Amino acid sequence: MTAKRQLHLNAFLRNIGQHEAAWRLPESDTRLVTDIGHFQRLAQIAEKGKLDAIFFADHPALKDRSQDRPWDSLDPFTLITALSGVTSRIGLVATASTTYNDPYGLARRFATLDHVSRGRAAWNVVTTSNAAAAANFGFEHHPDPNARYRRAAEFLDVAYALWDSWDDDAIVGDKARGIFVDPDRIHRIDHVGREFNVAGPLEIPRTPQGRPVIFQAGSSEPGKDLAARYADAIFTAQPEIEEGRAFYADIKARVRAHGRDPDKVLILPGLSFFIGGTEEEAFALRETFEDLTLPTYGLAQLSRVTGIDLSTYDLDAPIRIPPRSAEDEQRSRHDLVYRLTRDENLTLRQLLRRLSAGRGHRIATGTPEQVVATIVEWFETGAADGFNLIPPALPSSLSTFVDEVVPLLQARGLFRTDYEGTTLREHLGLERPAAVRRPAAVPSAAE
Amino acid sequence: MTAKRQLHLNAFLRNIGQHEAAWRLPESDTRLVTDIGHFQRLAQIAEKGKLDAIFFADHPALKDRSQDRPWDSLDPFTLITALSGVTSRIGLVATASTTYNDPYGLARRFATLDHVSRGRAAWNVVTTSNAAAAANFGFEHHPDPNARYRRAAEFLDVAYALWDSWDDDAIVGDKARGIFVDPDRIHRIDHVGREFNVAGPLEIPRTPQGRPVIFQAGSSEPGKDLAARYADAIFTAQPEIEEGRAFYADIKARVRAHGRDPDKVLILPGLSFFIGGTEEEAFALRETFEDLTLPTYGLAQLSRVTGIDLSTYDLDAPIRIPPRSAEDEQRSRHDLVYRLTRDENLTLRQLLRRLSAGRGHRIATGTPEQVVATIVEWFETGAADGFNLIPPALPSSLSTFVDEVVPLLQARGLFRTDYEGTTLREHLGLERPAAVRRPAAVPSAAE
Repeated sequence: MTAKRQLHLNAFLRNIGQHEAAWRLPESDTRLVTDIGHFQRLAQIAEKGKLDAIFFADHPALKDRSQDRPWDSLDPFTLITALSGVTSRIGLVATASTTYNDPYGLARRFATLDHVSRGRAAWNVVTTSNAAAAANFGFEHHPDPNARYRRAAEFLDVAYALWDSWDDDAIVGDKARGIFVDPDRIHRIDHVGREFNVAGPLEIPRTPQGRPVIFQAGSSEPGKDLAARYADAIFTAQPEIEEGRAFYADIKARVRAHGRDPDKVLILPGLSFFIGGTEEEAFALRETFEDLTLPTYGLAQLSRVTGIDLSTYDLDAPIRIPPRSAEDEQRSRHDLVYRLTRDENLTLRQLLRRLSAGRGHRIATGTPEQVVATIVEWFETGAADGFNLIPPALPSSLSTFVDEVVPLLQARGLFRTDYEGTTLREHLGLERPAAVRRPAAVPSAAE
Repeated sequence: MTAKRQLHLNAFLRNIGQHEAAWRLPESDTRLVTDIGHFQRLAQIAEKGKLDAIFFADHPALKDRSQDRPWDSLDPFTLITALSGVTSRIGLVATASTTYNDPYGLARRFATLDHVSRGRAAWNVVTTSNAAAAANFGFEHHPDPNARYRRAAEFLDVAYALWDSWDDDAIVGDKARGIFVDPDRIHRIDHVGREFNVAGPLEIPRTPQGRPVIFQAGSSEPGKDLAARYADAIFTAQPEIEEGRAFYADIKARVRAHGRDPDKVLILPGLSFFIGGTEEEAFALRETFEDLTLPTYGLAQLSRVTGIDLSTYDLDAPIRIPPRSAEDEQRSRHDLVYRLTRDENLTLRQLLRRLSAGRGHRIATGTPEQVVATIVEWFETGAADGFNLIPPALPSSLSTFVDEVVPLLQARGLFRTDYEGTTLREHLGLERPAAVRRPAAVPSAAE
C-alpha cells in the first residue's frame, strides 16, 4: 500500500502578525516585537501543530514608513538559531541574502545551525530586492537582478562545495594511534570564479542533513531558473488557483529540464487566512484588520511595487494600475495589482484593504472546513504541495490554525499526526544528499 | 559598608577540552565535538557555578595538523546563540573577526543576540591571526597587523554608531493614532570612512545592554591600544605573576590615558588548572595529559609561533628559542617561549609538554585550596580582576572547578553565591551606556 501524499505546512512568522495592522488590535502587545519569549511561544505552537517548519524573512535595512507598523527587526538567522534550543523537531528556515553576505561565512553559519539543531536547518536564498540595503553594505548602488542572480548561483555553488568538503566518515577518532580525522577525507574546494575565490575546506564536519535544505522564492525568470536548479522547496505568491497551477506546472517542468526529480522540489504558495465559527464571523474578523490599516503604509508599499507615486490619488475613486514594463523587478506583485484592478472595479481604498489581507497571497476567509476545502483544492489539483502559512496576528492566528484546521487535515489523512523523522529533510520527504566531489572551478577565458 | 571587590570568572570552552590531548583520554567521547547536548551541558555547569560568562574562540579556517586534535569546528556566534535558549543568566561571549566580516551584518547579529539572550551578549573582537583565513574570504593575502587594527577601530566605530542609532524610547506603540515608532528618534549614521561606508540606521531597536559587552585580547601595541579605547574586558596570556602585574598596570594606564575609568575595564588572564585531592594527584593528572600529547601537533604550533621549522630538531636535546624580531606578529607567545627556554633548561620535549598544559597561560596545579591561593594572589596584588578559565578536559575539568574551587571563593566572599542582575553588564559591574549621537564621519582630504 502506498502512503497517501502528504501536505507540507510552513509557518511564516513576523513579529506580532503578518497583517500590517495586527499591532493595532487590542490583543497585541507591541513590546513583544523583540521579545524572545514571544518567538519561543510561536515556535512551540507550530511544533505542537506538527508543522514542517517555521520561517523568517530578511530585511537588512530599516523599511520606509517604519512608523506605520512593526517589521522584521531581528536578524532572522540569529533569531531562529536561538529558537533551536527550545524546540526539538520543527524545521528552522532563515532567509539570508547572497548579495550582502560572503559565501564562506554564511555557509559556515548554516552548517553550524544544522549541527546545533540536529538536522533542522534551512536557508531561504534571496538576492534582496530592497535597494536601501546597498547603502548599509558599502555598495554604491544596489546591483541589478541579472547581476544579483549570477552572484547567487555562484554563491550556491561555493556553499554546496563547502558543505560537501568533508566526507561523512572523515572523523576517525583513533585515540590509540592519535588520529582524530583522516586528512585525505577532507577536501579543499579551490573555487576560483567570477564573483568569489574560496579555498576551503570548511572547518566543520559534514552536517546531519548533509546540506541545509534550500528554499527559494524568485518569481522572475532568473529567480525561477535558480529555484529549478537548486531549491528543495519554493515559496510563491499566487492569489488565484489558475495562476497557481500554471506556476506549479512551469516550475516542475523547469526542474525536470535540469535533470532533477520534480517530486523532490516542493511548491508552497502563501496562504493568508481569517478563520471564524461561521463565514460571517470570519469576514467580520478580516474587516477588523482592514479597518485598522493606515493608507500611508499601503500607499508606500503599492507605490514601490508599481513605480507609481500614488500619494496624491483619491482613495475613494476607482483605480487602474497599468501593466508593468518588461524591465520591472517587482514582477509578481505588480502583475497581481494590475490584474486585480483590471478584473474588479476597486477603489484605491478597496485595493489597499485587499492587499493588506493577503499581501499578494491567496486569502482563505471562512470556517475551518472552508479553509480546509481551499487547501485540499490547491493540493489535489496541481497547484501546491503544501502551503506557506501567513498568520495575520501572532500568536492568535497561528493558534487558531493549529487548533482548528490541522486536526481536520489530520482526520483526512493529509497531514502527519506526529513527526516521523527528526530532520527537516525527513519531514519534507527529501533524501540526505551524498557529498559530491566537484572539480575546482576554472574561470573561463571569456569572463 | 562598601561591598567587597568581586572576582570575575569566564569559562573558555573548546569542544571536548582545551588541552590538545584531552580527546585521547579514556573519558572523552570524540562524537561530542559537534554535539549540541555536550555544549548545553557545559553552559549549564558554568551557570550552576554562577560564572560571569562562557566564551568561544573563532577559527574561520581549518587548522594545520587537523588530524592531531579536535579544534573549534563550529561557528562560535551560532553556537553561543543556540545556547542562549537553555540558559538564563550566564553571559555569552562569541569571538568574531573584524577582518573577515562586514560591520552592518555583524552589528546586526550581535544586537539580535543581545535581544534574544535578554542582555547577555558579548563580542570578543579579534582581527584574526591565522593567515589561512584570507583564502576563504577572497583576499589575495592576509592583511598585516597595522592594516587589520586600523580596520578594527573603524569597524568598532561603525558598530557603536549602529547600536546607538535608536533612542531608547523610539518605540511609541500608539495604537489609537497609528504610530508604532517615532522616526525622529531613529538616526541614520551616514558613516563615510577609509574602510567602510554605512548609512544605517540599524533596523533593530536598542538592545537590553545598550551595546553588547566588548572583549579584546590583543597583546601587540595596536592590540593594547584598541583594547584601551574600546574594551570592557580584556583576555590575556600571562604565565608569570610579574609579567601579569606589568601588563595590568600598563593596560589600566592606557585606559586612563583615553579618559576612561580603569575600574570599568576588567583584565582577565587565562588560567589553566589541574586539580587533585593532593598536590601529587594534581601533578599526576597533568602528567596524564602530557603523556598523551603528539609531538607533531606541538611542533607545528611552536614552529608557527616562532617562525622556526622545528620538525627536524632532537626532541630530547635542550632547546633555546631566540627572541623575536620586531615585526613578528605572534608577539606574546613568542616572548613566552623565548623566556621559558632562556630561564629553564628545557629539552624540546619538555617545552612541548609545558606548552600543552598551559597554552601560554598561567597553570595552577594542586589542591582546590592551592588553586584558590593562586587566584587570590593574582587578584589581590594587581595582576587580575578575575580569570579566563581554560579547562583541560570538558566537561570534567569545568565540573571540578565549579564543584571544588567556586565554593571556596564564595566562602571567602570573593565570588557571588547567586547572580544579582540579569545582564552580563550587571555581572561585570558595568553600566549600561547611553546612546551617543555622533557627527557623521567625513573622510579627511589626506586619505
